Amino acid sequence: MNAIARLIRPRSVAVIGASADPSKTSGRPVAFLQKHGFGGEIYPVNPKVGRIGGLTCYPDVAALPAVPDVGIVLLGAERAYLAVRELAARGAAAAIVLASGYTETGEEGALRQRQLMQAAGAMRILGPNTIGLVNLTDDIVLSASGALAMDHFTAGSIGLVSQSGGILGALLSRAAARGIGLSKLVSTSNEADLELSDFIEFLAKDKATKVVALYVEAIRRPDRFRAAVHTARQAGKPVVAFKIGRSEAGAKAAVSHTGALAGSDRMYDALFRQLGVIRARTFEDLLDIPAVLAAGRKLNGRRVAILTSTGGAGTIVSDSLGVAGFETPAPDAETAARLKSLQSGAHANLDRNPVDLTLAGLQPDILRGAISALLASPSYDALTIIAGSSAVGSPALLADAVQDCLSMSDKPVIAYVSPYAPNVGLTLTQQGVPAYTSAESCASALSSLLHAAQPVPSGHAAPLGARVDISDFRSGSLDEAEAKALFGRFGIRGVAERVVTTRAEAVAAARELGGRVVLKILCGEITHKSDVGGVAVNLTPDTIGERLTAMTAEVEAATGRRPQRFLVQEMVSGGTELILGLHRDSLGTAVLLGMGGVTAELFKDTTMRLLPPGSGLSRDEARAMLHDLVAWPLLDGFRGRPKADVEALVSAIVAFSVMAAQLGDRLIEAEINPVFVLPAGEGVRAADGVVVLGAATG
Amino acid sequence: MNAIARLIRPRSVAVIGASADPSKTSGRPVAFLQKHGFGGEIYPVNPKVGRIGGLTCYPDVAALPAVPDVGIVLLGAERAYLAVRELAARGAAAAIVLASGYTETGEEGALRQRQLMQAAGAMRILGPNTIGLVNLTDDIVLSASGALAMDHFTAGSIGLVSQSGGILGALLSRAAARGIGLSKLVSTSNEADLELSDFIEFLAKDKATKVVALYVEAIRRPDRFRAAVHTARQAGKPVVAFKIGRSEAGAKAAVSHTGALAGSDRMYDALFRQLGVIRARTFEDLLDIPAVLAAGRKLNGRRVAILTSTGGAGTIVSDSLGVAGFETPAPDAETAARLKSLQSGAHANLDRNPVDLTLAGLQPDILRGAISALLASPSYDALTIIAGSSAVGSPALLADAVQDCLSMSDKPVIAYVSPYAPNVGLTLTQQGVPAYTSAESCASALSSLLHAAQPVPSGHAAPLGARVDISDFRSGSLDEAEAKALFGRFGIRGVAERVVTTRAEAVAAARELGGRVVLKILCGEITHKSDVGGVAVNLTPDTIGERLTAMTAEVEAATGRRPQRFLVQEMVSGGTELILGLHRDSLGTAVLLGMGGVTAELFKDTTMRLLPPGSGLSRDEARAMLHDLVAWPLLDGFRGRPKADVEALVSAIVAFSVMAAQLGDRLIEAEINPVFVLPAGEGVRAADGVVVLGAATG
Repeated sequence: MNAIARLIRPRSVAVIGASADPSKTSGRPVAFLQKHGFGGEIYPVNPKVGRIGGLTCYPDVAALPAVPDVGIVLLGAERAYLAVRELAARGAAAAIVLASGYTETGEEGALRQRQLMQAAGAMRILGPNTIGLVNLTDDIVLSASGALAMDHFTAGSIGLVSQSGGILGALLSRAAARGIGLSKLVSTSNEADLELSDFIEFLAKDKATKVVALYVEAIRRPDRFRAAVHTARQAGKPVVAFKIGRSEAGAKAAVSHTGALAGSDRMYDALFRQLGVIRARTFEDLLDIPAVLAAGRKLNGRRVAILTSTGGAGTIVSDSLGVAGFETPAPDAETAARLKSLQSGAHANLDRNPVDLTLAGLQPDILRGAISALLASPSYDALTIIAGSSAVGSPALLADAVQDCLSMSDKPVIAYVSPYAPNVGLTLTQQGVPAYTSAESCASALSSLLHAAQPVPSGHAAPLGARVDISDFRSGSLDEAEAKALFGRFGIRGVAERVVTTRAEAVAAARELGGRVVLKILCGEITHKSDVGGVAVNLTPDTIGERLTAMTAEVEAATGRRPQRFLVQEMVSGGTELILGLHRDSLGTAVLLGMGGVTAELFKDTTMRLLPPGSGLSRDEARAMLHDLVAWPLLDGFRGRPKADVEALVSAIVAFSVMAAQLGDRLIEAEINPVFVLPAGEGVRAADGVVVLGAATG
Repeated sequence: MNAIARLIRPRSVAVIGASADPSKTSGRPVAFLQKHGFGGEIYPVNPKVGRIGGLTCYPDVAALPAVPDVGIVLLGAERAYLAVRELAARGAAAAIVLASGYTETGEEGALRQRQLMQAAGAMRILGPNTIGLVNLTDDIVLSASGALAMDHFTAGSIGLVSQSGGILGALLSRAAARGIGLSKLVSTSNEADLELSDFIEFLAKDKATKVVALYVEAIRRPDRFRAAVHTARQAGKPVVAFKIGRSEAGAKAAVSHTGALAGSDRMYDALFRQLGVIRARTFEDLLDIPAVLAAGRKLNGRRVAILTSTGGAGTIVSDSLGVAGFETPAPDAETAARLKSLQSGAHANLDRNPVDLTLAGLQPDILRGAISALLASPSYDALTIIAGSSAVGSPALLADAVQDCLSMSDKPVIAYVSPYAPNVGLTLTQQGVPAYTSAESCASALSSLLHAAQPVPSGHAAPLGARVDISDFRSGSLDEAEAKALFGRFGIRGVAERVVTTRAEAVAAARELGGRVVLKILCGEITHKSDVGGVAVNLTPDTIGERLTAMTAEVEAATGRRPQRFLVQEMVSGGTELILGLHRDSLGTAVLLGMGGVTAELFKDTTMRLLPPGSGLSRDEARAMLHDLVAWPLLDGFRGRPKADVEALVSAIVAFSVMAAQLGDRLIEAEINPVFVLPAGEGVRAADGVVVLGAATG
């Protein structure tokens, strides 16, 4: 058994700083272990006390009769490291350090945390600042938190790991009240050592766990997280994450457009999506979704039957499912006939969906018959049963009927409980029919089943291929021409252009390029050229000279800087403008694709993909990005427009990602804005770009 | 007392078809009245029974010793009208008809419903197909529904009217479980007579009611609804509505762009918004929002303090409030100092928000001190208190502290209950601190307070002014030139253009108009001209002739119809393209404004306003429409663009609305697409348009 397995299923637990008073915080760990019938050895450690809870109490760790698997350290932050050092010396697998007062409090606390880790040596640490863990499978509580005090645990197959300790009690009590069974509940908190990914890996192998649920504040080591999630998915276990911090995004200021459009929360979105992690949008979803996944049924389509005996609630559920993209088609003829044969009531509408049994739904035979008919119907992929007010008085009616029918089919079945009737929901959930009190939760649950039915994402990585030589590029902020030359080096074609410094050169360049041209100032320091009058379009050899003179004066007036160099470019028409950029934060490096022009900034129609470690994006992944865009139809022949050169755009995205992967941290900033995607067969053209290159190394 | 007041607070109730068996549906009304101590007369009517519940039972209505205020009719749909006729003959104020089997079942049922209304004459009818009503203020149940069976009602100040009977039980039991008090609960169902608006008007005057909550399926008479809501708002009572049918919108097919963009649910959105009705987005919100409005506190800003003793839950709430646009600033220096003076703990972070008291929050003095400090702080407009796991064990701690402090301030205070602890939420809610178990509900509740704090909308109507003479316009589908002439008649300027039929005329027109021109086919039958090659831009006198010949052939090939007439138009540049259209459904007529071009259809950036009865939109209302658009910055000088002629656009919207109001039903379809808004001072230009005019009447 490795250290994490010994931590979660210890055969012996030392409690350092235990109190004989079970009402005190430091009295709880021993009391919790005894209350839930811990079968291993419990070693209370306290030099001032002789016996605790009928057990021998030891003066220190050295005095213990055997090596404990786990030590629960109840000492304060100032002294906890001493106990940790003793536990490590004895060869314990892990210590749980409950004290707060470490990195979360500032510099002094960070020092204490380093001291703690030095004391631990090779021994594993859960915490500090953790409230510990509950192994519900084996009835073991390793905690001193009153929030985890329960008479009895509702064990099940959801393994829950949280970076916040404070919400553990809420999750435990909410799950218990709803009949949602957990297997393990772990708070990692400061993650001085053991972190989210360690427990995901443990749960991936834990027989009692079928679903992994995560409460995430920040993923410290994205590569380990990737690997851990991949292990869980390979083991057939879906991973659900609730991530806090959705509203911080807006607060971050960034220089380039790309930065402004891509908040950190969107990076988590991209990471979760690429790994196949199901994102819980609300805290409620963090139980709602695992509950339905734990039921273990697969959803193969979007057609949902709704069975009700009360009209209003059926409509509410139907409406929410519709908003979430589900269909609620009427029963097929055969199913409708089967439903009608169940009862002769004149007013029941059995050819519609929701299927409303009205009061006849109170008769067990009719209820069973209707459930069977809908489960058997080829028109439906899932069934939602409404528990109405009648279920309050006779909860067994629905529960028994469901029980009798569930084995007939492997389609997912969920329930919506309309009145306040917690016992009804609890019973149904425990019978394998996850019950919800909100129609939105029903929709979330079914959506997560569709998500879980998708294949495990592979890496979607593209190998880097031969290293591109860029030794001739200088470091620093490149000017537009240099930036496009760099993009060109990686295979992204730019617009035809000439660098000029005089009117005469500009006229000559316009004549050489032919057609209408664009004139721009060329200056690495001015990023928003058009804001200072530094861009003019639609020029001809006849007009470009005059315009260059005027532009020089305008830009100088606006910036105090007299432009010396200019670009004359072919003017691209008939294409669609996009942005291709880079976003980097603690989670990694992402490629951002978005609609270009002013609409990009107003409608924020962008999508991101994180680069897999050490590689670029695959063509499939690049293609999937296009389909994410709301404006995708513009590239796909919308309203008679010519189809865009999608394959060339895919190549450009892959090339951009390969550039980012090869240059790594040296590529401080990179954006092509706009890149024109021309009609099929005509390729793409990078029309403007920004690059900031760090110093070359090695 | 009018009939509705007598229906809701009857002094006597006849129960026609009553059974002596209280377990039967028909036995319930008498049993309910007696159980809740009805102080008036109860007259059971049943020719086969002598006494019911200790009361004399009468053979028929004619035999009653006095005129009942209300008759509850328990007979089936086939016979109910007979009882109704008798009640009307005796002079009862109203009958409640519970039977189903009327319009909701089809043609035969509709006949029965007409028969029922004929029988009622001047007497008012609630239903049919209703489950009746509960007057919680006076402990009166007029229903036979088991879903409304409760030992005790939680009376309060929320008046709830529902078009669905089925959800009444859910609302009643959910509200009771949370300590949310209702005043009246009415199911209107088929609305053969009494409808939503009748009860809104009653509740507007009902002393016990402070908030009106509505469950809406369809508003049958929008003008009455407008008037009723206006009465309630004038009485200082906010109106909250949950409207079913959000997902039907997508299903509706429509010919013009405008129709496709404006689903019926958006019409309800527009109506609610114009009337100041707060829309509950989820069924939960239909209790969540009234609960906080009933507490009667005003929210004057977006700054919310969060007080917690458990970290995680505070973060969850903070995050959701942030997503909803609230701010959670750190305490000001004085408040931080006051908080710090409460405790000397080293690890509490009292200069941040959420303000985390940690375990010290379990001490009543500290808790009271913190609540007082935050309520007194000039930095906050509202307070959200988190009830953590400790509240489960000692619910009185928080409740008492809140109780002591609430009167110190009139700022709104709400609570978030983190663990499963229904009793904690119930107590807090009953003390005037509405409690929620979801962070999204906290955000909805506070948002609704901001909404309610806005002034009652006035009519926003513009008088029609002098009638515009359009007697020279033909009926039917106008061609583009005619349509723009009609818009011009109402004051909306079109692009300069000439109708031509030959190459020579086209060349002459292009020369006359000057600059670059647009060539289009002119044909009322072809609506999407560009899809069939019927539009060419950027033409000159030199190129237009050739293009006309080519276009003739292309359009003929695409449509089988050889175009005979063309429009030559000035080509507008430098403007922003918008759509101005009309949408009409059972709720009324709305003006739709949206971004034009392909983005309009992809991003659906549109907004609507319903025309007030008999008038156009005011300039203020038209201006507010512009600000609704995501793309509004494009008109407002975004990124150095020239500011658009917003005043001219406002005039065009008003003119369009006046046209719609004056022409009424005769204007079957109308759309200007695009209308170009030019830079300030240059006005707008209608560049293309569709009009379908019905036959002139009168």
